[in-house]
Order: sequence, then structure tokens, then C-alpha cells
Amino acid sequence: MLKIEQPITIVSFLFDDFETLDLMGPVEFLAALPNVETKYVSLAGGLISSRQGFQIMTDNFKSLPPNSLLLLPGGQGVRKMVEDKIFLSSLEKAVLQAELVLSICTGAALLAQIGQLKGRKATSNKLALSWVASHDREVLWQDQARWVVDGKFYTSSGVSAGMDMSLGFVADFWGQDLAEELAKKAEYVWQNKADQDPFSDKSRAI
Amino acid sequence: MLKIEQPITIVSFLFDDFETLDLMGPVEFLAALPNVETKYVSLAGGLISSRQGFQIMTDNFKSLPPNSLLLLPGGQGVRKMVEDKIFLSSLEKAVLQAELVLSICTGAALLAQIGQLKGRKATSNKLALSWVASHDREVLWQDQARWVVDGKFYTSSGVSAGMDMSLGFVADFWGQDLAEELAKKAEYVWQNKADQDPFSDKSRAI
Repeated sequence: MLKIEQPITIVSFLFDDFETLDLMGPVEFLAALPNVETKYVSLAGGLISSRQGFQIMTDNFKSLPPNSLLLLPGGQGVRKMVEDKIFLSSLEKAVLQAELVLSICTGAALLAQIGQLKGRKATSNKLALSWVASHDREVLWQDQARWVVDGKFYTSSGVSAGMDMSLGFVADFWGQDLAEELAKKAEYVWQNKADQDPFSDKSRAI
Repeated sequence: MLKIEQPITIVSFLFDDFETLDLMGPVEFLAALPNVETKYVSLAGGLISSRQGFQIMTDNFKSLPPNSLLLLPGGQGVRKMVEDKIFLSSLEKAVLQAELVLSICTGAALLAQIGQLKGRKATSNKLALSWVASHDREVLWQDQARWVVDGKFYTSSGVSAGMDMSLGFVADFWGQDLAEELAKKAEYVWQNKADQDPFSDKSRAI
């Protein structure tokens, strides 16, 4: 488990066509934590293209430093990566080495595909949940959750939910006051209830 | 004024130590608009470092294409850029060429410094508003606004307000339905009232 009294490395594992806000929402809050260093990696290193048209520089992934948190966005690129055995093998190594894993949106499909969510509760984008769930039926998929925590895995619902989950993670490890302070600094209206999901089908029907 | 029936170029004007979510929140929504192309520029081009520890590739700014929207983030880097005459001269050229300008957070200080907000209503991050306002006292600074529109200038409050402003801009030009659709796709709880500001001092006192 992550040790917050020691230096923490936050490693974002990227691939082409990742969804911008999946990554950048959490990064905004997590990079402000005390005692953290941020790294951006990909399978081959170099420039990675976001779905929204910019390029971000990455190092090639070799291994995670001790006491790392792995950040895994989703997006259109997941549709390709979920079939890419070399990518998945590298990701699996990172997941096993990480003390904590945060996936956003369809990033959970990658974790499901490598069997790392089996028997665990998890969630994903509500518009893509049936596709995501098809990668492992033995995950306890939650269709009404802004985010879900099970063991070392935090999984969030669609895109913007990653910000709420990240602040929830901050509250879990550093306390509610720091989470609220980070939200206030960014003038962010935090949806701070993990089980309140305005975008689940059931919630919309109410 | 921006013509939405013609191709639009969304140009993000970047500098080192820009605030990640100032840029990436709006980019998430604006890049999804019909008929848009996105570009990322800086004074000298090349890799620009965000405050949150990653590098993004930019072209060097020469001039804006016709029918461009200029996106200007804020952040720690503004404190340096607001004194940089070469940067400001280049930015002024971009602002004058743009059909529409969206600034986020302390990005408004840069617009104020080059005199482009004089006599207009504008806003900025509520924790930094007095510093931002010091760059031009003849701006009609609004201390209770999530975002403000005046002429071709949209200015937003702190960091996260950029997302709400961007969706407000979409609603103004393409209609409320598209703005709500983009918010829903990203599972974003849109704070859709420009004049409701939960982070202004007065609001907090109520």
C-alpha cells in the first residue's frame, strides 16, 4: 500500500488517442500533493498524441520506482490497446509494481483485460460500460458509482469523474481538509460522494 | 466575430508553468466541436512545460489563421510572462487577429497587461483577483462571476471555471443542446450559470 510519509512517484501510463481530461483532471490535483514527483511514460517513449490533438513527451516504460501510484487514462486509444499484447504485458508489469492504481473512464477495460480486476468491484464510463465489462465478466462492475475503491484499485466513471475520484483518493490518504483545499484552489465544485452517480441510467430515470 | 459555419482553428497560446487544467479542461470540450482544428503554439515553439510536470509540443507563433479562437491559460508562469515584452507583443498580435479569445484564471492578467480588456467587464481567479486587477484598473473587474463575456472576450474565474465557460461558449454559438451533450459525454456536472460563483468572497459569506 502507498506510504504517504515517503516520497511518491505518480506515473501516468500513456498511449496514442488517450482522452485528455481523463489524464489532466487527476494530474491537476495529484501533482499538488506533498512529496510527489510526476512521470509520464509509454511503451516506446517519445511523443504521444492525445485524442484532442496535442503531443506530450513520455519516457519509455522500464519499471516503476518504489512507492509509485499508476495513473491510467481511457479514451478512444483503449480500443486498440486492449488488443495489443506487448502493450498489455508492459502495463501488467506496471500494475503489479504499483502500490496504487487509478484508472479513469475506459482505462478500466485495460485493467480488466489483463485480469487485474477479477473478483473486484470496479466501474467505468456509463456510456461504455457494457463494452468495458465484456473484457472480464468476473469483475463486479458497478453501474451506479462515480468511483469505486477495491484493494489497491481506484476506478472512476467517465472522463470528469477522474477529478472527483482523485480528490476522493486525497481524502482517503491525506484527509478531507486537504482534498477540499485542493478543490477550492482550483475553484472546483467537487462531486464528493463516490456512490452518487448522476450519469448512471438508473439515476437518470429517477 | 467567429463564424461557426466555416472551419475554425482553436489556437492554444502556451508558456512554461501554465496551469494544466486551465488549458486541458477547455480543450476537452472545444476539440469535440464540429469543424474545428486544434493548434498549440508558443513564442519560440518546441516543448513547453506545464506547472504539473509534463511537456507539450508547440509550434512557434507566427500568425493566426482566419476564423481562429485563441485559448489562453493562466498559472504560475503568468507572473513571469506579464513582464516579458517580447512575449506580450506576440500575444497582442494573436489577440488582435483572433475572432474570439477565451482566457482562463490568471490568463486575464496577460490580456489586461496589453490593454485589451480596458473598459470591458472581465473576471479571473478569485484568490488572485487583486493581483490580476493591478495590471489594469480600467477593466471592470467582476468579483462574482464564474465567467464573463464582453465583445470577443470570454474570461473565466479560477482553473475549473474554464470548463464551465467553454460549455457556456458552446451554448452561445451552437446552442444549449450541444453544450449539454458534450457535458454528458464527459460525465461533467456543468456549473452552467455565468453569474453563480461559489468561490467569490461574497458568495462564501452568504
